[in-house]
Amino acid sequence: MISPELLRRYPFFSLLNESQLKAIAMITDERTYPKDTILFKENTPATKLCLLLEGDIDLVYSGGGEGAIVNALVGSIAPGEVLGVSSMIEPYRFISSVRATVPIKVLEIDSIALLALCEVDTKMGYALMSNIATAVLERLKFTQVELAAARA
Amino acid sequence: MISPELLRRYPFFSLLNESQLKAIAMITDERTYPKDTILFKENTPATKLCLLLEGDIDLVYSGGGEGAIVNALVGSIAPGEVLGVSSMIEPYRFISSVRATVPIKVLEIDSIALLALCEVDTKMGYALMSNIATAVLERLKFTQVELAAARA
Repeated sequence: MISPELLRRYPFFSLLNESQLKAIAMITDERTYPKDTILFKENTPATKLCLLLEGDIDLVYSGGGEGAIVNALVGSIAPGEVLGVSSMIEPYRFISSVRATVPIKVLEIDSIALLALCEVDTKMGYALMSNIATAVLERLKFTQVELAAARA
Repeated sequence: MISPELLRRYPFFSLLNESQLKAIAMITDERTYPKDTILFKENTPATKLCLLLEGDIDLVYSGGGEGAIVNALVGSIAPGEVLGVSSMIEPYRFISSVRATVPIKVLEIDSIALLALCEVDTKMGYALMSNIATAVLERLKFTQVELAAARA
C-alpha cells in the first residue's frame, strides 16, 4: 500500500474524497523497473491499472500474436498518465504491449479490487470510469492523427 | 422521444432497468439522414450520443482544422454501434468528422441531459460510462492495428 497523499497529486484521482483515496491507496503499490522491461504483454489478461510516476513508456503493437506485424510503435505514455486502462474495460486484456524506454517508477493498482470498489461505490466508479474514458479517447485522438499522417 | 423497448434491444443499454430506460427514451429521438450527410464535424462541440440503427458511417480526420491533412479515413461505424462518444467525455468536442456513406437511421440522445441523469443516478452512470470506455477502447484497438499496418 501507499500513502493516499501520493494519489491526491494526480488529476486522475482529483474528484475522490478522503475515504475513497484511502481505499485505493490500500490496493496500490509503488514499483520501479529497469529500462526495456515489458510491463504488459499484448493480448494477456489485464489486472493492473498503472500511473506512470517517472520515466517514459512506449506502446507497441505486435499483431495480436498472429505474427503479421512485429513491434510497431503505436503510442507512448508520459509521467502523470495512466496505463493499463484495458484492466478496467471488458474483456480485460491488454490491446498492446508496454515497454519502458528508460528506468521507470509506477503506481500499480490491483484493478480487480478497484472494479469491486467501483461496483459498491458507483459515485467513485462513475468518476473513475469517466477519467478512464477520457484517457482512452485522448489516446484514440493521438492514434487517429498518426494514422491520418501515415496515410497522407 | 422514443419507446424504451427500442433501447432494450441494444447491448449498450443492457444493464439498465425499466425506469432508467424510460428516462433515456425521453431524451432520445429517431432520425434518418441521406447519404453523404456530415453528422458530426471534427473539433465542434459534441452534444449528441448516437446509436446507428441502419446504414454505414465513416470516421474522417481532417487535421484538426490546421489543414495539414485532408479527410483521411480513420475508422467506420456499423449498425448497433454508438457514435459521438466524445459527447460523454471531456472536453466534449468531436475528435473526427462522421459521414454517412449510405442513407442512415440513428437514435440521437441529448448527451447533456444524459450526463445530468448519470450524475444523479451514478449506478446508471457507471454502467453507461463503462460501455462508453469499451466502445472507445474497441475503436482504439482498431486504429492501432491500422496504424501498425500503415507503418509496416
